[in-house]
Amino acid sequence: MQRYRCIISYDGSGFSGYQVQPNKRTIQLELEAALAKMHKGDTIKVVGSGRTDAGVHAKGQVIHFDSSLLILENRWEVALNSLLPEDISVLEVKKVSESFHARFDAVGKEYRYVLQLSSKRDPFQRKFAYQYPFRLNVEAMRTASKYFLGTHDFTSFCSAKTEVVDKVRTIEAIDFFMEGNLLTFRFVGNGFLYNMVRILVGTLLEVGSGQRSPSEMQDVLANRDRRLAGKTAPAQGLYLWEVFYN
Amino acid sequence: MQRYRCIISYDGSGFSGYQVQPNKRTIQLELEAALAKMHKGDTIKVVGSGRTDAGVHAKGQVIHFDSSLLILENRWEVALNSLLPEDISVLEVKKVSESFHARFDAVGKEYRYVLQLSSKRDPFQRKFAYQYPFRLNVEAMRTASKYFLGTHDFTSFCSAKTEVVDKVRTIEAIDFFMEGNLLTFRFVGNGFLYNMVRILVGTLLEVGSGQRSPSEMQDVLANRDRRLAGKTAPAQGLYLWEVFYN
Repeated sequence: MQRYRCIISYDGSGFSGYQVQPNKRTIQLELEAALAKMHKGDTIKVVGSGRTDAGVHAKGQVIHFDSSLLILENRWEVALNSLLPEDISVLEVKKVSESFHARFDAVGKEYRYVLQLSSKRDPFQRKFAYQYPFRLNVEAMRTASKYFLGTHDFTSFCSAKTEVVDKVRTIEAIDFFMEGNLLTFRFVGNGFLYNMVRILVGTLLEVGSGQRSPSEMQDVLANRDRRLAGKTAPAQGLYLWEVFYN
Repeated sequence: MQRYRCIISYDGSGFSGYQVQPNKRTIQLELEAALAKMHKGDTIKVVGSGRTDAGVHAKGQVIHFDSSLLILENRWEVALNSLLPEDISVLEVKKVSESFHARFDAVGKEYRYVLQLSSKRDPFQRKFAYQYPFRLNVEAMRTASKYFLGTHDFTSFCSAKTEVVDKVRTIEAIDFFMEGNLLTFRFVGNGFLYNMVRILVGTLLEVGSGQRSPSEMQDVLANRDRRLAGKTAPAQGLYLWEVFYN
């Protein structure tokens, strides 16, 4: 048996998220279906670095699987891409030691969130950015974002459905950059809770639009209450950009 | 009655082209359905600057229609966008004189064709660019493109199904520009025949890949035979970018 690590990219708009669910089209389902075809119908379990929700995209999701097939790394890439649907792409396949684990070994992640700042609906961006037609004060959002840097209990910034008990996470960087009319938020941290990036973005938008002041973020964090944070920003603007390993 | 000119944009990937056809989803069908809703079910005929094929996109298609509704220009834009599906967007609505005609008054058009130069399949570009994994000599394509500038009979560069008799057209500019791994071809001319841009691109790709020399273009034009030109490049890379009027 050989363990393989793959970097994959997907357009999340046609999927009910990453993880297998009954009667739903998911990333994991398509990956396991492609691997089953290569293994005469045998089930090959795929382990991802984490889930992504329905409509959320990935530029650099990482998965691992085990196989006894003797195939070179670059041929794995070609074979898998030929069996996968067009909205998933395998960017890299590497042999790894059998101790590697895509989820447990991940030491950090980068997510990006893309806003299309325009009053005009753009048919080409509708699945790939969140259209935001109002004025935004990026400097106020930048000031607010500083409160999230470092290690905090992010209970206020995760879905009430979150099952994990330990809600302490470390955010290393939050940046903002404009390209044309697209404003991208970049988040780097050691891990992110369920809906955490989307709730951080939704809350920062309330700061950027003047509904909240940046310094309020301190209280929102301290009170550990999801109801105090802003709305969950829509899925289509979110990208799992990169997963980091040692 | 008042005549209105609209600039519209659409993601062509979900449409069987611009023009109404029985039992097909087309741009014209969706525009006329939205207008019918605004006019208590009355049919309002929409006239476009020209057709686009299945899968072809538009950043600046122009249409006109007549209405007796008394609505301000910017309210037309809001009303139509609220009734249109997300893959069509109205960018501008202007009152025009009743003599304006979107097709007959067009004096030129700009089309763009986007190649994604990469051996890696990109799930985000699959409907918006043509993936080309081979090396291309852009200088050779630029040299070849000079033969198309000016006024020529483009019989060799249009579909054999073309119904128009006069196949003489004038191309004012052909440019190439790179952005990241996307190579864009820009064509400006007084009019383009059926499949003309896609056949020009397909032929230029045969020059760029070394299968033909740039100077062959002269003979291909002179012989007025579709079989002498290259393949028709796929629809998903093509954009009707702008329509020009005096």
